[in-house]
Amino acid sequence: MDAKEISKAVIKRLPRYYRYLGELMEEKVERISSNDLSKKMHVTASQIRQDLNNFGGFGQQGYGYNVKYLYHEIGKILGLDKTYNLIIIGAGNLGQAIANYANFERRGFVAKVGIFDINPVLEGISVRGIEIRMINSLPEFIRENQVEIAILTLPKNKAKEMAKVLIDNGIKAIWNFAHTDLDAPEDVIVENVHLSESLMALSYNLSQYRNEHTEK
Amino acid sequence: MDAKEISKAVIKRLPRYYRYLGELMEEKVERISSNDLSKKMHVTASQIRQDLNNFGGFGQQGYGYNVKYLYHEIGKILGLDKTYNLIIIGAGNLGQAIANYANFERRGFVAKVGIFDINPVLEGISVRGIEIRMINSLPEFIRENQVEIAILTLPKNKAKEMAKVLIDNGIKAIWNFAHTDLDAPEDVIVENVHLSESLMALSYNLSQYRNEHTEK
Repeated sequence: MDAKEISKAVIKRLPRYYRYLGELMEEKVERISSNDLSKKMHVTASQIRQDLNNFGGFGQQGYGYNVKYLYHEIGKILGLDKTYNLIIIGAGNLGQAIANYANFERRGFVAKVGIFDINPVLEGISVRGIEIRMINSLPEFIRENQVEIAILTLPKNKAKEMAKVLIDNGIKAIWNFAHTDLDAPEDVIVENVHLSESLMALSYNLSQYRNEHTEK
Repeated sequence: MDAKEISKAVIKRLPRYYRYLGELMEEKVERISSNDLSKKMHVTASQIRQDLNNFGGFGQQGYGYNVKYLYHEIGKILGLDKTYNLIIIGAGNLGQAIANYANFERRGFVAKVGIFDINPVLEGISVRGIEIRMINSLPEFIRENQVEIAILTLPKNKAKEMAKVLIDNGIKAIWNFAHTDLDAPEDVIVENVHLSESLMALSYNLSQYRNEHTEK
């Protein structure tokens, strides 16, 4: 199976399949038909068959999909069978929330993690047994631990500058929680989590809801 | 201007315009041409003109857009000129990070906020001056403060059940950080932040990057 042949639209849907298959495994379900998966996921059965056909003949007529097998195959495509060394930049609440994020370790996603901050008051304090380090030791830490991913939780006015430092020191992928777009060369992967934009979608819908209920 | 006439695709792009216009205001820029905005945002100028034409003739030939005016008009469409009472369910790191989220108050988005948890050890402890309350006082708090938004930061095995309690008590919108889909009636707004899915997109791309660099 060559993941490169699979379209971007399918790749985007894979995490959701992965999540549902994981839930089925927790419920001890061993196999599931595309119809049953369709009902659970609110996606058409033909969409599911089409998407999963990309990974070869996983489904068999009258048998359905082997939940565990499909879960692991999708996990492999998503790169979840590998481990990554990562650093968290910013030891505030969000940085700490991510450090504690139990899923990380359960999935074996993280091999080695470092937390960095610019506030000297935090130097040497530990979060879940991980010592908070100062930015000046960043280059050495990245090099010594072959860190590929940096999780950026700084305020936006500090984020762009820090992204440059990270990239200059060989970081390959940034998970960006700062509410700004980073300047990164094409071969650096940037995945943005713009929480404010999600909140604005919520307020837009709520504001529409209010309008509709006031007009009556 | 009637927001209802504007297509969903445009609405989805509005938060990004709003963010860039906000940055321009911080830089004391008073007006900007669609060409300059286009370069800044990496969107075509014709896309920008088309999108912003939805809000009437904001742009004038040879003059460009009035940054402050456009910022406020987009804010109004997004419902950011209104205030909302909200509660945060879960006083862990993520709940605290959101409670501290400075943007909330700066935008005047939040009028009144409550934080709730199920862990009795946290009862009465304060986060940024906001007292952590126990779930049994939730119905009264929602009623007395006309709370519309609940931010759900519980683990997924507790989230579905809590969503039901929230909806039964009149919550109109849920900002869901739990890694599961909630069962909600059609008139309840649910905006999901599935951090794991974003992380999987990152690991997929990084895994592809590794493959490409190993093949050589």
